[in-house]
Amino acid sequence: MAKILLLSGPNLNLLGVREPHIYGTTTLDELVASARETAAKFGHDLDHVQSNHEGGLVDAIQNARGQCAAIIINAASFTHYAYAISDALLAYEGVKIELHLSNPYTREPWRHTSVVSPVVDGVICGFRATGYRLAVEAAASLLEAK
Amino acid sequence: MAKILLLSGPNLNLLGVREPHIYGTTTLDELVASARETAAKFGHDLDHVQSNHEGGLVDAIQNARGQCAAIIINAASFTHYAYAISDALLAYEGVKIELHLSNPYTREPWRHTSVVSPVVDGVICGFRATGYRLAVEAAASLLEAK
Amino acid sequence: MAKILLLSGPNLNLLGVREPHIYGTTTLDELVASARETAAKFGHDLDHVQSNHEGGLVDAIQNARGQCAAIIINAASFTHYAYAISDALLAYEGVKIELHLSNPYTREPWRHTSVVSPVVDGVICGFRATGYRLAVEAAASLLEAK
Amino acid sequence: MAKILLLSGPNLNLLGVREPHIYGTTTLDELVASARETAAKFGHDLDHVQSNHEGGLVDAIQNARGQCAAIIINAASFTHYAYAISDALLAYEGVKIELHLSNPYTREPWRHTSVVSPVVDGVICGFRATGYRLAVEAAASLLEAK
Amino acid sequence: MAKILLLSGPNLNLLGVREPHIYGTTTLDELVASARETAAKFGHDLDHVQSNHEGGLVDAIQNARGQCAAIIINAASFTHYAYAISDALLAYEGVKIELHLSNPYTREPWRHTSVVSPVVDGVICGFRATGYRLAVEAAASLLEAK
Amino acid sequence: MAKILLLSGPNLNLLGVREPHIYGTTTLDELVASARETAAKFGHDLDHVQSNHEGGLVDAIQNARGQCAAIIINAASFTHYAYAISDALLAYEGVKIELHLSNPYTREPWRHTSVVSPVVDGVICGFRATGYRLAVEAAASLLEAK
Amino acid sequence: MAKILLLSGPNLNLLGVREPHIYGTTTLDELVASARETAAKFGHDLDHVQSNHEGGLVDAIQNARGQCAAIIINAASFTHYAYAISDALLAYEGVKIELHLSNPYTREPWRHTSVVSPVVDGVICGFRATGYRLAVEAAASLLEAK
Amino acid sequence: MAKILLLSGPNLNLLGVREPHIYGTTTLDELVASARETAAKFGHDLDHVQSNHEGGLVDAIQNARGQCAAIIINAASFTHYAYAISDALLAYEGVKIELHLSNPYTREPWRHTSVVSPVVDGVICGFRATGYRLAVEAAASLLEAK
Amino acid sequence: MAKILLLSGPNLNLLGVREPHIYGTTTLDELVASARETAAKFGHDLDHVQSNHEGGLVDAIQNARGQCAAIIINAASFTHYAYAISDALLAYEGVKIELHLSNPYTREPWRHTSVVSPVVDGVICGFRATGYRLAVEAAASLLEAK
Amino acid sequence: MAKILLLSGPNLNLLGVREPHIYGTTTLDELVASARETAAKFGHDLDHVQSNHEGGLVDAIQNARGQCAAIIINAASFTHYAYAISDALLAYEGVKIELHLSNPYTREPWRHTSVVSPVVDGVICGFRATGYRLAVEAAASLLEAK
Amino acid sequence: MAKILLLSGPNLNLLGVREPHIYGTTTLDELVASARETAAKFGHDLDHVQSNHEGGLVDAIQNARGQCAAIIINAASFTHYAYAISDALLAYEGVKIELHLSNPYTREPWRHTSVVSPVVDGVICGFRATGYRLAVEAAASLLEAK
Amino acid sequence: MAKILLLSGPNLNLLGVREPHIYGTTTLDELVASARETAAKFGHDLDHVQSNHEGGLVDAIQNARGQCAAIIINAASFTHYAYAISDALLAYEGVKIELHLSNPYTREPWRHTSVVSPVVDGVICGFRATGYRLAVEAAASLLEAK
Repeated sequence: MAKILLLSGPNLNLLGVREPHIYGTTTLDELVASARETAAKFGHDLDHVQSNHEGGLVDAIQNARGQCAAIIINAASFTHYAYAISDALLAYEGVKIELHLSNPYTREPWRHTSVVSPVVDGVICGFRATGYRLAVEAAASLLEAK
Repeated sequence: MAKILLLSGPNLNLLGVREPHIYGTTTLDELVASARETAAKFGHDLDHVQSNHEGGLVDAIQNARGQCAAIIINAASFTHYAYAISDALLAYEGVKIELHLSNPYTREPWRHTSVVSPVVDGVICGFRATGYRLAVEAAASLLEAK
Repeated sequence: MAKILLLSGPNLNLLGVREPHIYGTTTLDELVASARETAAKFGHDLDHVQSNHEGGLVDAIQNARGQCAAIIINAASFTHYAYAISDALLAYEGVKIELHLSNPYTREPWRHTSVVSPVVDGVICGFRATGYRLAVEAAASLLEAK
Repeated sequence: MAKILLLSGPNLNLLGVREPHIYGTTTLDELVASARETAAKFGHDLDHVQSNHEGGLVDAIQNARGQCAAIIINAASFTHYAYAISDALLAYEGVKIELHLSNPYTREPWRHTSVVSPVVDGVICGFRATGYRLAVEAAASLLEAK
Repeated sequence: MAKILLLSGPNLNLLGVREPHIYGTTTLDELVASARETAAKFGHDLDHVQSNHEGGLVDAIQNARGQCAAIIINAASFTHYAYAISDALLAYEGVKIELHLSNPYTREPWRHTSVVSPVVDGVICGFRATGYRLAVEAAASLLEAK
Repeated sequence: MAKILLLSGPNLNLLGVREPHIYGTTTLDELVASARETAAKFGHDLDHVQSNHEGGLVDAIQNARGQCAAIIINAASFTHYAYAISDALLAYEGVKIELHLSNPYTREPWRHTSVVSPVVDGVICGFRATGYRLAVEAAASLLEAK
Repeated sequence: MAKILLLSGPNLNLLGVREPHIYGTTTLDELVASARETAAKFGHDLDHVQSNHEGGLVDAIQNARGQCAAIIINAASFTHYAYAISDALLAYEGVKIELHLSNPYTREPWRHTSVVSPVVDGVICGFRATGYRLAVEAAASLLEAK
Repeated sequence: MAKILLLSGPNLNLLGVREPHIYGTTTLDELVASARETAAKFGHDLDHVQSNHEGGLVDAIQNARGQCAAIIINAASFTHYAYAISDALLAYEGVKIELHLSNPYTREPWRHTSVVSPVVDGVICGFRATGYRLAVEAAASLLEAK
Repeated sequence: MAKILLLSGPNLNLLGVREPHIYGTTTLDELVASARETAAKFGHDLDHVQSNHEGGLVDAIQNARGQCAAIIINAASFTHYAYAISDALLAYEGVKIELHLSNPYTREPWRHTSVVSPVVDGVICGFRATGYRLAVEAAASLLEAK
Repeated sequence: MAKILLLSGPNLNLLGVREPHIYGTTTLDELVASARETAAKFGHDLDHVQSNHEGGLVDAIQNARGQCAAIIINAASFTHYAYAISDALLAYEGVKIELHLSNPYTREPWRHTSVVSPVVDGVICGFRATGYRLAVEAAASLLEAK
Repeated sequence: MAKILLLSGPNLNLLGVREPHIYGTTTLDELVASARETAAKFGHDLDHVQSNHEGGLVDAIQNARGQCAAIIINAASFTHYAYAISDALLAYEGVKIELHLSNPYTREPWRHTSVVSPVVDGVICGFRATGYRLAVEAAASLLEAK
Repeated sequence: MAKILLLSGPNLNLLGVREPHIYGTTTLDELVASARETAAKFGHDLDHVQSNHEGGLVDAIQNARGQCAAIIINAASFTHYAYAISDALLAYEGVKIELHLSNPYTREPWRHTSVVSPVVDGVICGFRATGYRLAVEAAASLLEAK
């Protein structure tokens, strides 16, 4: 039985409100609840931290060291330039999964580059709410394989 | 109840043999079986086509029109330059999912660009065998949402 | 009668002190006062937030949702890379104006690219203190046109 | 009391007709009238020259030397490549303001580069008709500061 | 019965003289005559304007508004950088065809980029004198389809 | 009296079905029939080969050597990267014409580069069905000039 | 005593006919015969496969696994973009040699990049027919060293 | 006698734990102690601030104005994109030294560009713990030279 | 005895006035007189045309065909983008010399590229007034060599 | 019977010592002896010059004019930037072969560009000691063909 | 007790004379003396070689093999392109330190790239004369750690 | 009365022999004689140094300090990358002129960039033998102006 940390980057607290044609109408609370439920099916706990501050996410990743067996991170716009997050993940030895609600490759060019992708185990994007359940499943599977 | 097409690109028929430190020791047959099993749980059938020929994959995508409700494609090295596949997917109206065993963003720079990503619903990469089960789940979820 | 939010990015709290040959000797307080005075002429209130933290500006933009009818933002050096701010502005439905004291196109190359410009209604730069009055006028005019 | 020269580049004579979803329905005559009115409020005269010829705008800038205290220029598509205009402005010692009706940073990539911006005092864009009044105000303010 | 405007850019008045190994020995007058003859076969009139001035071509395109149903433009070297022409064509609602005597893709790299191509209906290049007849046919066909 | 080979690249067999807003509703059979009819007017025969395989098109070009006096090729997505086709055309001494239904310069950036253009006599694009008739005319004219 | 596979890419079947000023007048059969003769001198057999299909070459490389001790590949135009071939070679554990008749670095820029070079033991180019004998010698020498 | 501010960027609080093959096993506390000891030898005090927040470092630099005669900054991953830090240093008039434990030019390409280097007096990198002593010496020497 | 055409591009009519720290205080009339005097020493006539219009310079180059044996052109800012001038020079068979008062390689980056240089016999830059005499000498020498 | 010049660039005198995992343990003397032996088999003499100085290699190439019928050059790191060597080879009319012990395309990016390749007859790389024998054979074959 | 080699690249023999506003007034002899003095404090000897020849520096680095325990190199302008020096350093197993008097990142763009940095232990720049003492200290510290 | 130094770079000693279609049949001795003769007309002496070694040219430039009032340099292929020469010229306070026999802008792309141009007073290229006389005249004129 392990603890999984779900991290949400800037503006994700607006989910359900902000640009629903891109991100859908589900709220962040609903997504977290659904992820937690999936985690429970595998016998795992799930913590959640949201921050609009790059340093807030770095702190959360550092705090997860020795506490959480896996991190699922939707870094939102930080995905594309926040190397401090990428370095924090590099120093984290657990399972690491990058998650996006939408498929960034169908959007603006600057969203096509991720500084998170090179330091995670795998990436899931484009499946909106379903992606949160899949990411937890992927984490559970990778934890089991260790 | 729907049919899902799983497409495997060049050299994937060597899985379990080719560069096991990157792709693992599972064979393609085992991956297909596991994907089929997952599809069955959701009440779906799964067909599989592997080809080392770009045109072979284009033909398969075209044949899926009106026959299959979803395509899961691991285009392997074609992912990065085979626009004929990307155009065939563009003309396919069903659910479309891009899948990779490894995380291409941790490998050579030419594997960081995908001509498939901009024309699919979502992407799953880096979870090896588990990714095949997740992709079928994602497809089932998107089919249900339609 | 509406509320306008004036946002000041990193190091602008040093105005009047920092590099006066570029930014002039007027202090930030004086600029805010002059902007507020102009707003009053149009019957509007003006709030002001300064932060050296990208997340602080994101928070302020989010808080303005439903509270302020317009945002005037001088994001200073964040202008050129802070996509979290740009995403926060994208989710804000009110009037949005980008403002700079100096003309960034006469300075270092990295100041020639703005991640804010593509998500605002308009841009005013190079007019130092006068620019603050003009930006408020522009906001008032756009609010009236709505 | 000074003279301000308003310069309009190629195709601006079609304003009100050409692509109204981008440029609005106001005609160039109306914009000039509104700018002149604002100039009058500050006790200034305003001349206007429109040309579809790069050389025509260069001639006008040269003629303004010693005659006009400020130039407000909307160089339209010349903005992005016409270095002869940029060199003519370089040789003009008065106040120089770049003006655009729309916000070029929300349009095609070739409109994101300006060869005019590095040689002017300031830039105003995106405020359509209002921008003309603001530009005259900015010019008046810079003239006063001299 | 409609009027078609044929536009010839800089140095095309030298045709038959200038670099015959690239452009052939036919003169511009002969090309215009042949185009006019083809137009007549379809019951259309054809006007012709040649200018070495970018502004001259912009003026001609503007004058065609409401007068001519189609423009066939061989912008010669202006093809590759004269955005004022491209903007003028954008504001023209009729049929628009880009024409070149030679195939620019077999020549210097700077001739491989066209600022005209993105704003026309179609392009014909490399067929020398024959291209003029084909362009008129294409115009006639597009006019008929309207 | 000569034979002309019309070559159709990947996914063109879907014409009339695939993305009709871009490619129209005419089927490939109709286009071939119309081209054949035009050829007949000039006393020429027209053969047609469609393939989703790059190698299939290379084979067809090689087979045309000594059999066909001209090749008209719509290489579809192969246009942009399939150098084997470009090399096969290089080795073909007859008349060579590149053809596209739509105008690729109004679409995605990767469609703006053609590896076929530098090895053909001329290019026709953007005139949909009409383009097929024009290409045959162009071929006939070039054949006559030889 | 080992088996060596000689692979010939697209259009090489035209050798002796296609562009003799670049590739010479020797036919592919003559080159294969000469390579086979050299192989025999070292006590080795030599098989030959030519294909205009990328997939055909991938198939041949895969079939060589466990059958042939060395591959000599002249991938012709596939050299410059066909990553499926490069991936197939990556999965082949034997000796791998890249061969070209001409020196690609004296030709068009797109021939200056090879996706094959990074996955082979060595490269020989520019020596026309002689290169085939040298490549077999190199293969024999590398086989001996193993 | 002066005060020197030592600034440590994101994830440096993990020193001794994080990737010891790159950063060594010395902790941040040990490095600070050693730097303070060196400062004392020159008769200087040394303050230390560590933050995972870009804004935290900007605040610290601003607070050093008028309080500290020199800043030694190891901005860690912020080195490569955090222009707000670079602008804060620009507004600081004291001695400024950039410091890195490892040699960034032997690591990933994104670590080869520094937005800090153009605004400091000098740079020291690659000497791990020793670098901290050298940086203090350099600061002392520059302070003496003033 | 031959005629030499001296061509002056945009803003050169301002010489002696415009940016004297770059271009010196000599006027264009003085430069032309000095060039004419040098031409006379070699028994040649010298004509001069100045234009702020790209088309004006193209016209002048065309008119020189058959009238003047040599062209000396200081295209000023047109040097860097006006391909119509470069094409006009291409069609001119006489001696062609590019001339600049200042050394453009010591100025802004956009002045480092010349579209004129690839189509002239030689280039002289950086010698201010002296350059005009040298250019006439160079022309005389090339004329003599013919 | 001819003389062949073997040229060795900087640091090759360290062969057998320097980075043996890349360059092997054979010394330069052994390589020269083996090349000389191969030359003797074909009835040719072989001279050898090694220099760490670009000018030394240029001198040697110039001295070979009229003395040696062929040059085999391993320019080592000069391969990638020393245009003076490339220009000296351009002025040498004999047979020219580029040789490398290792395969540069499997190493750092700066080793992927050669300024020597465009001016030689052919290239051999990656076969270590064997490459020296092959290069002499290639030279003998090209000499015979002359 | 070890020997340290100090290497000075082209034009450093002019120190104290050449551009004193950039390099200061200290002569090279004074710098060497100061470095030697520091070395003596640590019980080490210091040799010095200056050369304007790239090959001279390569020779010196090769000669240091087995003779000197550390190299401190200020390669001056060779820093930015002389790969022969970088390859010589690669083959040297001792301590390696890059040193610059000025901070190259505050100068011309071509001075921002170093081919030396990726092959040394560490870099010190911008501290003028002090940098020489620091570099010797750094070398002594690294030697001690071995 | 002053001394002028003429510097000739690598391979210029081959003039009259090497590629006469580019460089003509005049020998270097003849060029030097002609330059010396021109210098004498102005009452100046002319020294000449040719070297195939970058360091040789650097030495010569350094030796000219205090001895020669002007340097005329044809750096040949060193022009395009030898920053040590460019730095040596930077430290030389006399008149500096860059000279080329041919027009490099009509040749290979790597000859279009000069590292010498940004540090000289002026450039003369393309006039072959005549250029040497013009360069001496230019030097004499600049010396007189001092």
